[in-house]
Amino acid sequence: MRYINFSPDGHRRLLGVLQGTTIRSLGDVTLEELLAGGVDLTSYGNSAHDVGEEFAADSVTYLAPLTHPGKILCIGLNYADHTNESPYEQPTYPTIFPRYNSSLIGHQTPMIRPRVSDSLDFEGELAVILGSGGRHIPKDRALSCVAGYSIFNDGSVREYQFKSPQWTVGKNFDGTGAFGPEFVTADELPAGGTGLKLETRLNGKVVQSANTADMLHDVASLISIISEAITLEAGDVIVSGTPAGIGWAREPKVIMRHGDVCEVEIEGLGVLRNHVADETLQA
Amino acid sequence: MRYINFSPDGHRRLLGVLQGTTIRSLGDVTLEELLAGGVDLTSYGNSAHDVGEEFAADSVTYLAPLTHPGKILCIGLNYADHTNESPYEQPTYPTIFPRYNSSLIGHQTPMIRPRVSDSLDFEGELAVILGSGGRHIPKDRALSCVAGYSIFNDGSVREYQFKSPQWTVGKNFDGTGAFGPEFVTADELPAGGTGLKLETRLNGKVVQSANTADMLHDVASLISIISEAITLEAGDVIVSGTPAGIGWAREPKVIMRHGDVCEVEIEGLGVLRNHVADETLQA
Repeated sequence: MRYINFSPDGHRRLLGVLQGTTIRSLGDVTLEELLAGGVDLTSYGNSAHDVGEEFAADSVTYLAPLTHPGKILCIGLNYADHTNESPYEQPTYPTIFPRYNSSLIGHQTPMIRPRVSDSLDFEGELAVILGSGGRHIPKDRALSCVAGYSIFNDGSVREYQFKSPQWTVGKNFDGTGAFGPEFVTADELPAGGTGLKLETRLNGKVVQSANTADMLHDVASLISIISEAITLEAGDVIVSGTPAGIGWAREPKVIMRHGDVCEVEIEGLGVLRNHVADETLQA
Repeated sequence: MRYINFSPDGHRRLLGVLQGTTIRSLGDVTLEELLAGGVDLTSYGNSAHDVGEEFAADSVTYLAPLTHPGKILCIGLNYADHTNESPYEQPTYPTIFPRYNSSLIGHQTPMIRPRVSDSLDFEGELAVILGSGGRHIPKDRALSCVAGYSIFNDGSVREYQFKSPQWTVGKNFDGTGAFGPEFVTADELPAGGTGLKLETRLNGKVVQSANTADMLHDVASLISIISEAITLEAGDVIVSGTPAGIGWAREPKVIMRHGDVCEVEIEGLGVLRNHVADETLQA
């Protein structure tokens, strides 16, 4: 089942299911509410009472599938080839940094190049959305916590990422965390979202090409390891890391600028497409 | 005005105002709701219609003043003497790391020493709670965004803090972020919460002694600088950094263990007191 969080008119917010090229509305419920309620999202989309208005998928404004997840845990240095292009040694433990909800945008919404820095970079990633959680989750039960998957473009303002030892600010500029287009239930993908081709394209040119099987800490491991420290909950999101190819590691550096179009495609999850707009030119 | 978020019986949650040693209940409203609604908290506590049940302040269970802030932005390396005892050079830009809400606890609630590590440390800090926000907030207007202040003990599991380049996990173990006891409205303190004596005591012995005037980036600067990147909102919390004296930098290291009592006192804000309990022995 494929869910889309959207606005048909720029005012109302609706949740819908994608059926071919049509979105059937389920009303104003949110995925956050459904996940917190323990709803089986594979069947919910079919069984919902609301027969629902229908909208052409190419006519609506996409929002992030979840705009207010309880927490967003982003994983750094989770592909060896990306660590190699970074200034860091490979740690054996996952590198975790936050996204605040204030940075999230949806598919086809402008990614904002901030006025204070000309260093906006892309990072294509697999996003994992939890349907349940807990503490000290054994690895062999971890995948039962996964409700579904989506795509994330972890837009990074590199100058700010490296102004201090912690990356938080560079990873949290407004309008830089692209998330979507769809929330796809876990049953539609291989267990743990592994073995999926991941490709990032900037203005049509392939800049990242990898496979989710190359993660150093796979999805089950991440859930289990994080839960040694932190209680995970339904609606939490794990953004699982980016492979090699980022613009900041290139010679010369590739920086995203106004008018650029960045696409992240993951097999089975669709294409997350965002154009870049300067902050001062934002509509 | 001094607000306390509490439970009188371990079941109900109430917000109240402190009057001497008595808490007068304002009902089940939250500070998050009041702040989001733009309520003037200096007058609200007096004018609220609900005359309210009254409870002895020493008879209730204290909760964090806000249990679900929109974001918690913690500042690292914001006192020069603490940077000197750390493995880091002093950056010129604020070092920011997150707290997730899942780590928060209230006054007199056990701080949990996790079963996976024997490296729990204290960090006494001034917490700043925003009543309004925005983007690109000029420094000379920044303090108008502050609704009030509280105390934070940024309990840090040092081994996990340094397992990767990012501190997130070591700063987010369940039951390590002590917050409270009270939310004190800004009008009761000097502008920006500056010039306040801050003292941390472990089992009665002074381990940190500083003054909030010694912050490298003061409260107004932090709000202004963060808002260059991130939209700040009512209910967001800035935890403004710890001074020298942490246990991990001592020779030999001082580690908090089951039965220890840690107190953080800030002039005008009271004393935040927590005892330490092993995870497996948690009630």
